[in-house]
Amino acid sequence: MSDAPSAGTSSDTSNGTPRRRRGRPAGTRTGAAAGTRERILAAAREEFSAHGYDKTSIRSIGKAADVDAALVHHYFGTKDQVFAAAIELSFGPALELPGALAAGGPDGMGERVARFMLGVWENPVTREPLLAIVRSAVTNERAAAVFRGLVGRRVLARVAGELSVPDPEFRVQLAAAQLVGIIMLRYVVKVEPIASAAAEDLVAVVAPTIQRYLTDPDVRPGAGG
Amino acid sequence: MSDAPSAGTSSDTSNGTPRRRRGRPAGTRTGAAAGTRERILAAAREEFSAHGYDKTSIRSIGKAADVDAALVHHYFGTKDQVFAAAIELSFGPALELPGALAAGGPDGMGERVARFMLGVWENPVTREPLLAIVRSAVTNERAAAVFRGLVGRRVLARVAGELSVPDPEFRVQLAAAQLVGIIMLRYVVKVEPIASAAAEDLVAVVAPTIQRYLTDPDVRPGAGG
Repeated sequence: MSDAPSAGTSSDTSNGTPRRRRGRPAGTRTGAAAGTRERILAAAREEFSAHGYDKTSIRSIGKAADVDAALVHHYFGTKDQVFAAAIELSFGPALELPGALAAGGPDGMGERVARFMLGVWENPVTREPLLAIVRSAVTNERAAAVFRGLVGRRVLARVAGELSVPDPEFRVQLAAAQLVGIIMLRYVVKVEPIASAAAEDLVAVVAPTIQRYLTDPDVRPGAGG
Repeated sequence: MSDAPSAGTSSDTSNGTPRRRRGRPAGTRTGAAAGTRERILAAAREEFSAHGYDKTSIRSIGKAADVDAALVHHYFGTKDQVFAAAIELSFGPALELPGALAAGGPDGMGERVARFMLGVWENPVTREPLLAIVRSAVTNERAAAVFRGLVGRRVLARVAGELSVPDPEFRVQLAAAQLVGIIMLRYVVKVEPIASAAAEDLVAVVAPTIQRYLTDPDVRPGAGG
């Protein structure tokens, strides 16, 4: 797979309504304001990526976006809320998983999930921002809480909603754990031979595991009791 | 499981011969010198745990151990070499996995591996130093390289040596990925319900996955091709 950066993902040019806006009413919003919001968000993602959660502040984001810190706060609220927006931007491609999953039935679900998630991580354009977010979540408790809340609500809960089996959250987290572990060894710690294995080979090997977690009746929280 | 710290692990009082010693010959080593070496190593682990790989230096370790930085260098060599020694100390319990594994045959291997590794992480005394090392390895490329080398050589390669199947390294890494993912979701990001599930329930659920990776003939690097 090529390391050359390709065109930006669709989530880079999101023009959604500003969320978590505080204080002033939204009535004055114009095209220019939308541009400012996007510039702040891009700067926030850049700052969190380059310096991590700890060393990034509302002030440093404002400086990077060339706006007053008060404007960052106006559009996004607290540092945790800017971080959540930056995660949402970085996770844009992964947030499409529930939709991709809903497109098929239970058969082959493990393979579709594995292929989708590895695909997101194989692409350097989508991988680098994800890596930065994961690093912040691993090293900072507050960042972990924001990460947990957003990914839990936007990805895990929705995937669980696609399952018509008992204990869907537990199952989805087991599947996520399998993929997280592969991602850690392959893209973060870079252990060989997993780091250089063909993505399709990894999909083939982990698909039955994920399929079992998502659909096998024997998988349940009380299995060891 | 209780969060109360219990007595130190056996690896805390290791009195092994100093490795990677440089410069002066070892002839002058006495009981006092061994005590100094242990004090430096304990300080190093403490510094890496508290401040991470980036912010820890030979100098800060010397200061924490109340010795000259030159003495840290004398006993351990470079910062990477002190870090490797600190990992080895923190991973003491996990380094016993190959021995524990060798004690049984291929049947039930998945369950033994899962129970052993979750046991190490369930104990707060062994978990906290491991968490600190993992955080450094995730956030710093050099720390990741040291981590990869040591864990690869001391754990993964030895476990692979216990397998009499093709592609033992690939298999062991798949098993490790499954456990790493569970560890990340349960102990690092703390996602519910996995974070509060009974350890034995998780062992029961992931054991068949690990057993399959370690022994199933269909698991192979070219599975997707």
